[in-house]
Amino acid sequence: MSADRYAGRRSRALEAAEEAGLAGLLVTPGADLVYLTGFAPLPLERLTLLGITSARDPFLVVPALERPAAEAAPGAAGLEVIEWLDGADPYEIVAGLLRSGRFAVTDQTWSSHLLALEHATADCMFAAAGRALPLLRAVKDRDELERLRAAGRAADAAFADIVGLPFAGRRETDVAADLDRLLREHGHARVDFTIVGSGPNAASPHHDPGERTIEAGDAVVMDFGGVRDGYCSDITRTVFVGEPDEEQARVYDIVRAAQQAAFEAVRPGAIAQEVDRAARAVISAAGYGDRFVHRTGHGIGLEVHEPPYIVEGDETELLPGMTFSDEPGIYLPGRFGVRIEDLLAVTPQGAERLNEASRELTVVS
Amino acid sequence: MSADRYAGRRSRALEAAEEAGLAGLLVTPGADLVYLTGFAPLPLERLTLLGITSARDPFLVVPALERPAAEAAPGAAGLEVIEWLDGADPYEIVAGLLRSGRFAVTDQTWSSHLLALEHATADCMFAAAGRALPLLRAVKDRDELERLRAAGRAADAAFADIVGLPFAGRRETDVAADLDRLLREHGHARVDFTIVGSGPNAASPHHDPGERTIEAGDAVVMDFGGVRDGYCSDITRTVFVGEPDEEQARVYDIVRAAQQAAFEAVRPGAIAQEVDRAARAVISAAGYGDRFVHRTGHGIGLEVHEPPYIVEGDETELLPGMTFSDEPGIYLPGRFGVRIEDLLAVTPQGAERLNEASRELTVVS
Repeated sequence: MSADRYAGRRSRALEAAEEAGLAGLLVTPGADLVYLTGFAPLPLERLTLLGITSARDPFLVVPALERPAAEAAPGAAGLEVIEWLDGADPYEIVAGLLRSGRFAVTDQTWSSHLLALEHATADCMFAAAGRALPLLRAVKDRDELERLRAAGRAADAAFADIVGLPFAGRRETDVAADLDRLLREHGHARVDFTIVGSGPNAASPHHDPGERTIEAGDAVVMDFGGVRDGYCSDITRTVFVGEPDEEQARVYDIVRAAQQAAFEAVRPGAIAQEVDRAARAVISAAGYGDRFVHRTGHGIGLEVHEPPYIVEGDETELLPGMTFSDEPGIYLPGRFGVRIEDLLAVTPQGAERLNEASRELTVVS
Repeated sequence: MSADRYAGRRSRALEAAEEAGLAGLLVTPGADLVYLTGFAPLPLERLTLLGITSARDPFLVVPALERPAAEAAPGAAGLEVIEWLDGADPYEIVAGLLRSGRFAVTDQTWSSHLLALEHATADCMFAAAGRALPLLRAVKDRDELERLRAAGRAADAAFADIVGLPFAGRRETDVAADLDRLLREHGHARVDFTIVGSGPNAASPHHDPGERTIEAGDAVVMDFGGVRDGYCSDITRTVFVGEPDEEQARVYDIVRAAQQAAFEAVRPGAIAQEVDRAARAVISAAGYGDRFVHRTGHGIGLEVHEPPYIVEGDETELLPGMTFSDEPGIYLPGRFGVRIEDLLAVTPQGAERLNEASRELTVVS
């Protein structure tokens, strides 16, 4: 990506900040920094901070040992790079660069950094960027959408491969290891999660795969994803080891219908929470409302969870190019659970699925 | 690890907090939470928070969908688990559980969480745990030391393997990919960094491996590590592609002597910054003081960087069981760089190296 595009993103970020009544935006390592500079150091205890403020040109405060890496970043042109040496106080440096006012701070900025900034500055207030500027990265451009599609296709391919492997008699950790391997084989540079919950463990939405041996009659929830070409994948499918019983099949159909209802509720101008309501209405009408114990979805892009959130209380108006998950579920403690998740992109007409893996009830061996 | 040991760690953490004048300790996902509960969710936008306070028994506030996973954590016994549903306000829940006072907060706690806590509470103050309770995890027990030794041996083995492979004619990214693979082959569950800086790139301490083709005459700095059995490895070696020239060999000898001087300065009762001074004195005496652009080291354990820091200004008194890196370097911009890093453990007599890979000047092909 060219340096100009990063500079353009920084200009738009500052405009959005000013429109929101902010004096600027303070960005530490993570998705926001990648989005605005292409610089991707590990988030660590040494302060690295991009300042985009009304008072001066954008600046990047970096540890001296990271200066060469920062200057080599694809979006470094146009940034004033200011280094600090181990043992010096980088917060005093930042304080000297800020005028008074209210600044948005990257949600993921470490508290140790924020507390030191609060201490070093006098007339500055800080607000979480996710609340003050939630839509900074929410609308994806054509290139970002293409990368999300490619990540989705890779996750689909991993699912297509895994259902051809045996389930019964293997442990959850074995299937999780296969998913990790398959995501990498299909081009993922990093795997972030491989949830495999079988039998009663499928009723734990974020189950950590364990030593349990999968057996006939199990529902198996697989929720997996990572990063391909900088952008995140995230898909969930629930499969059955042998033919499901009547209740399992009924719950599967309800979740699938809820997932479809959310998909159909997506269009430009719809409000995020309305999409949640659409999925929830289907599950509640079927009598399982209290077993759908999480929101319907989350935005996704450079980060696996980012605004907007598809949840009651999120009043974001959906715009073409926004991307988020559609993942209702029903969880019956001690028995089984079902979740079905695709990523969606808002289009001018409605929604596009970024996952094409089959949502038909799938029986594995 | 037994639930009792986690409970013991929590009791000691509360004692340390009270001795430091704190009303308690607030812990979010990451190394502190793993240390105190064994629970290891991804750090995300949904609040998960362990409270260890003087006012009540320890509590764990978790998203409803993570309750089963939290209750299955090895250290969950003795914790009051309090769930919240998507759409509810978890910060109000935490505020209701805290009396007034000053609380240490995990350094890595997201700013979005801290700002919301600051907003929800009235008479609470927050301090970074790394400043208020820096030594919470600094002294390792026998089991932790054994895991750090095993991680170190695995990193040593990866180095022994890589020097048998060709360097000249391959790209930095190729060598980095080999290091990633070798760490996994030697038992790492995760690889966190594989810095490979060749030729002039070796002068960038945190160089991101790129397309540069390694050639004869290069110094190649390799700094790599990850997680094996929960604990971190971190090693740096600098090798030469063909015989080094006179200055390269001299700089190598200086860095090696500085690394040895730091090792010899370690003993119980020594002060962290004295170890930095010992390494720096050697490099300064040789005329390269201004080219040693970073501290000598950092603590390591569940996290790759944690207190104490081996840097001017860190006045931690070293105690047996503390573990940290010893990694001086000299960087000559546009030309080359050298860094040599071992992990050390403080022993009753002095220091033990957790890396045994050769520090002799190594020539590769």
